[in-house]
Amino acid sequence: MGALMLRHHALDTFMDPKSVAVIGVSRKTGQGSFNLIENMKAFGYEGKIYPVNPFAQEIMGLKCHRNIEEIGDSVDLAIISTPREEVPRIVKDCAGHGIKGAIVVPQGFADADADGKALQKQLTDISRNDGIRILGPNTLGVINAFSGFSSSFMPVRREKVPVGIICQSGIFFVGASTFTGMIGKGIDVANGCDLDFADALEYFGEDDDIKVIFLHIEGLKDGRRFFDVAKKVTRIKPVIALKTARTDQGAKAASSHSGSLVGAHEVFEAAFRQAGIISAKDPEEVLDYTKAFLYLNPMKGNRVGVLTFTGAGGIILLDTLEEQGLQMAELSSETIKTVKDLSPEWMPIHNPLDIWPAIMKHGMHSVSEQALKKLLQDPSVNALICIAIAPNPSQAFLDATDVIRETVAKQSDKPVVSWLYGPNQQAVSASLEEGGQVISLPTLPRAARTLGALYRRDGFLKQTHTDAPRFKVDPRVRELLNGLKEKGSSHIQGKKAFELLQGYGIPVVHSQFANELQGILKAAEGLGYPVALKISSAQITHKTDVGGLALNIGNRTEMESAYESMVEAVKTKSPRANIDGFLVQKMIGGGLEVILGAKRDPQFGPTILFGTGGIYTEVWKDIAYGIAPLSPEEARRMIRQTKSHEILKGVRGESGYDMDILVSCLLRLSQLMMDMEDIKEVDINPFGVFSEGGLALDARIIL
Amino acid sequence: MGALMLRHHALDTFMDPKSVAVIGVSRKTGQGSFNLIENMKAFGYEGKIYPVNPFAQEIMGLKCHRNIEEIGDSVDLAIISTPREEVPRIVKDCAGHGIKGAIVVPQGFADADADGKALQKQLTDISRNDGIRILGPNTLGVINAFSGFSSSFMPVRREKVPVGIICQSGIFFVGASTFTGMIGKGIDVANGCDLDFADALEYFGEDDDIKVIFLHIEGLKDGRRFFDVAKKVTRIKPVIALKTARTDQGAKAASSHSGSLVGAHEVFEAAFRQAGIISAKDPEEVLDYTKAFLYLNPMKGNRVGVLTFTGAGGIILLDTLEEQGLQMAELSSETIKTVKDLSPEWMPIHNPLDIWPAIMKHGMHSVSEQALKKLLQDPSVNALICIAIAPNPSQAFLDATDVIRETVAKQSDKPVVSWLYGPNQQAVSASLEEGGQVISLPTLPRAARTLGALYRRDGFLKQTHTDAPRFKVDPRVRELLNGLKEKGSSHIQGKKAFELLQGYGIPVVHSQFANELQGILKAAEGLGYPVALKISSAQITHKTDVGGLALNIGNRTEMESAYESMVEAVKTKSPRANIDGFLVQKMIGGGLEVILGAKRDPQFGPTILFGTGGIYTEVWKDIAYGIAPLSPEEARRMIRQTKSHEILKGVRGESGYDMDILVSCLLRLSQLMMDMEDIKEVDINPFGVFSEGGLALDARIIL
Repeated sequence: MGALMLRHHALDTFMDPKSVAVIGVSRKTGQGSFNLIENMKAFGYEGKIYPVNPFAQEIMGLKCHRNIEEIGDSVDLAIISTPREEVPRIVKDCAGHGIKGAIVVPQGFADADADGKALQKQLTDISRNDGIRILGPNTLGVINAFSGFSSSFMPVRREKVPVGIICQSGIFFVGASTFTGMIGKGIDVANGCDLDFADALEYFGEDDDIKVIFLHIEGLKDGRRFFDVAKKVTRIKPVIALKTARTDQGAKAASSHSGSLVGAHEVFEAAFRQAGIISAKDPEEVLDYTKAFLYLNPMKGNRVGVLTFTGAGGIILLDTLEEQGLQMAELSSETIKTVKDLSPEWMPIHNPLDIWPAIMKHGMHSVSEQALKKLLQDPSVNALICIAIAPNPSQAFLDATDVIRETVAKQSDKPVVSWLYGPNQQAVSASLEEGGQVISLPTLPRAARTLGALYRRDGFLKQTHTDAPRFKVDPRVRELLNGLKEKGSSHIQGKKAFELLQGYGIPVVHSQFANELQGILKAAEGLGYPVALKISSAQITHKTDVGGLALNIGNRTEMESAYESMVEAVKTKSPRANIDGFLVQKMIGGGLEVILGAKRDPQFGPTILFGTGGIYTEVWKDIAYGIAPLSPEEARRMIRQTKSHEILKGVRGESGYDMDILVSCLLRLSQLMMDMEDIKEVDINPFGVFSEGGLALDARIIL
Repeated sequence: MGALMLRHHALDTFMDPKSVAVIGVSRKTGQGSFNLIENMKAFGYEGKIYPVNPFAQEIMGLKCHRNIEEIGDSVDLAIISTPREEVPRIVKDCAGHGIKGAIVVPQGFADADADGKALQKQLTDISRNDGIRILGPNTLGVINAFSGFSSSFMPVRREKVPVGIICQSGIFFVGASTFTGMIGKGIDVANGCDLDFADALEYFGEDDDIKVIFLHIEGLKDGRRFFDVAKKVTRIKPVIALKTARTDQGAKAASSHSGSLVGAHEVFEAAFRQAGIISAKDPEEVLDYTKAFLYLNPMKGNRVGVLTFTGAGGIILLDTLEEQGLQMAELSSETIKTVKDLSPEWMPIHNPLDIWPAIMKHGMHSVSEQALKKLLQDPSVNALICIAIAPNPSQAFLDATDVIRETVAKQSDKPVVSWLYGPNQQAVSASLEEGGQVISLPTLPRAARTLGALYRRDGFLKQTHTDAPRFKVDPRVRELLNGLKEKGSSHIQGKKAFELLQGYGIPVVHSQFANELQGILKAAEGLGYPVALKISSAQITHKTDVGGLALNIGNRTEMESAYESMVEAVKTKSPRANIDGFLVQKMIGGGLEVILGAKRDPQFGPTILFGTGGIYTEVWKDIAYGIAPLSPEEARRMIRQTKSHEILKGVRGESGYDMDILVSCLLRLSQLMMDMEDIKEVDINPFGVFSEGGLALDARIIL
């Protein structure tokens, strides 16, 4: 532990205060009062509580103070539940009296109207200037079952479990049973005017009480800091995330071309993957993965052994295992022999190991124990799934939980999950889980997905991480960019765009610029037909859309007519576009069109993308994302993630394409984005890749 | 009801026998005995039971008979639990004594070794020849909670619920709580040596006790009959299916080119969709959809209104709604005003309708009731989701279930689902569901998916169904086919394949056949350069793989060199191929390459496919399937289902492509497959589609 090397953390004050001032607390108690002090006491808080309410003398036996000043004692933390207008003044007051932290409970800030947004901005400023840290607004605050402190005005259960949750809504405190199932410590960052995910994640990363961290994220303030903290914390303990507001964010981001590609959700997923965060796609996965990481051994390979009381169960499993990158283990001959000897002669024995016919011959207890023991010892098995019955108490002879629990307790270094079917699933599952070494999942697909998560975590921990390489680049790129900026250029295309890319060692197609027909014809002769002709205009983003692209021009006559139709088409379809000129390019056949792109994501900053290129890029949506700076491994992973990868490897008699050039160009693009903060977006589409080498065939850079 | 018009069904005997002979019943009773008669009596069977066991005098107070003969009374149904070898003899004996049906319980038939398969074949033959119907082998038989009959040797609960399940494993009887949750009637078709899914589906389709049917399918014997029965039954009542063994089947089917495309699972999905069966992708969907179809009103449009106690909940919903083709309703101004007046001034009011701030002001009961009433009346809302709290009994003031239940009871013609979060989800959900008009789902994504299923069912019932058209075709196609068959041709390519397609009105590219260079050159002159050159050989399936395809040949010199390299390449890469000759085709640019294909699926027979064509067809796997005969609506649906559809509509300045020609060709292909049983497979890839018209550019037909 201790890898983050923090001595004192801003959240200490929030999670374990010795004294709290509760400002704006109600006099009412009991049902429907949502009284914060009442809930705090019920939770077991034993520190000092100072109620502040100018209209009350006493609340729950505690003397009321009219204001902070009047407390006259040092206070660690303030919890504020007043109308929103009063909050900034009170926070300032708290800071003035040396209070280090404030939890701002009420709604009506950035979650509401313009006034609310302005009020929240004030809070951020106060926090920066007056040195007080703020959690919220719009928050239930924190829960700490270990210290016994909770600021939630909704009742929550106190359970000393090693699960830390960080969320943006009280729903994850109140509705924990649907999500993590339990909470040992919780931080509701909510609107996050000051303290945010990175702070809370850092805190739990350091906290030895916490073994599994769950994040509910709607949006991040500083994605880059979060990303950096997460990369460290996930090396120490598993972090599970449920990202919501996926489609909403997607819609927002869909405003421009590459905007719709770098949909925020895909970037989140890429950031999660790179940082080793386990992404849960629904609440069930949160529940299952939390339990798995708390109780199960790591999964050191992808081979699963299945012990089952039913043949059909094994088949249901197969469908999900494959999707998770897992496979049925080829069982050792010893395991097979053991079960074969117990089974009827006609029974084919293989994995999934259907022991029902053997049970009918020799009884449930003995068969289950022998088979399970062999599976646990079988070196070809990395994880086990047990499919057994959950009978009513009157049919307890069908209940295999004792055998499973005891056999696993004797010898297990593998994860063991189970699915119990029958009328008494909940009670029998609870009994199976008592030993703390086996978990029971409500369905087989969920059992398989849970093993998938364990396996991915093991893979992440085994990954080798190389730093992003530094390429030698042309120092004139910065000058060139500065020059363009000074001229007020924001959309760079054609020649200039190619120059910038070449400066970073990205190869570009041989091309010449011309601004009238004679120059174009001369350029084409020089390059040698066939050539392509492209319009160059800062106002034209998609050349194809306006007839600004002609390919495969074979000779002078064709060029003349291509030129005329292009000028005509562009005039009609984009009458206000300023035409800078034309780019004449050598036509190069036999390549595959991919897209290499980059963008500054509002949350994670420089982000690189790779995928299927050409004019149908947006139809195929076959794009992989990576957060810069990319490591070579990460660049390769991006390529592998796309369907283009199958084509790049070579299909149907083709010899395959040069993937090294793609890796190199992605890394160079990554370096360009890290070096040049002025570049907002790069879109190399198409980049033509060949059996050897590759070339940018078109490029667009936005400053 | 009664749409299937059956008087007496073979399964009547099985579901409601007046007398049963139980052959091979054990003398043991009690725990671990799996005694069938004991379970049958416990279930409540009141008919006559005749135990048959030559070694016992009496079982559970019933006189034992040594054999069927000895019973000396008429018996409706036999249940056989003997060692497998004895089963055929016993079934024959039963038939000889006038018994109409037999349930064969033991394992070890087609589920086991070669001997078992032979035994099962004997059973099928006996059933056909001796007029006895058989359920099984390897089955728990049937459950009928209404008549009180069950043949299951595993204990099952008797619940008179209108849910009928048809399955291939006892797991769905014993583990019902994981799947449908409950069973009113169940038929375990298991190995299906005689009675199969179509029979059972037909039976439940007719059965007024049953309102929702669930199918667990691993594989079908006669998919076409099943498909025809399903199309009728789904018009009367909802049918939900869980298809398992997906990947396994997929792997089996992946042996040849079109084999890997027409992966059986995709065909199943297409058949389900066409027949109006609701496909569940996991056990949770089975559970949720069953409940929804039992209790909820139909969903007449795709707009959802959300009442929520938490803002975060609404956001979680959005992600799944979109994926289901549903959308957040734009609420009426009256609904908005009602909630706005109750909320704090700063609160932005929209759908999802977050009523928490209003509750804090005016109390839970009153606000919930007013808002819900307005949502139920709001004409812009087709379905409702209520997100509320599931508190412990000590916090009952937070429990809105009474209000929700009562308000909905007063006025509801819309489906209302809810998600309750909090520590007491199960109990509070049960209380909410008591009224039988609202259902509670364990998570929000599941709530959204459940509404999606209701909405799709409504869409299916509204679909207009046109018959497949009959095109006038060239009668010589049959002669041509017969001729090819006589010559023993099985792989038809090039000229002959084009002739067959043209006979069915599918346009093909202008092309000429030649078998040496001089003929090729002449053909090319005639067609006019540029042309394509293609090898023609029955042994070469994928021309590209062996260098047997050259495109864009511009002149005589290019043709000479293309010819030489092709001959050379094919000799090297496919030395044993018999070269019939060469096809010279006019090159036609500007089209989009799609694939039109057909195959005889082992389960569903003639199946048509459409998708992205070209050499990367297998990379993109962008294929839609339809069971022939296709209706025009179905052909259009197939096209819409692919990503190619986006391109066909026209993107990025392109004008779009001729979809009518595609529909017409798919329908003609469908007719060809229905007419010509000798054709196993058709593969038109690529088919070039243009802004007007389209042409088969290459085709392969397998007999």
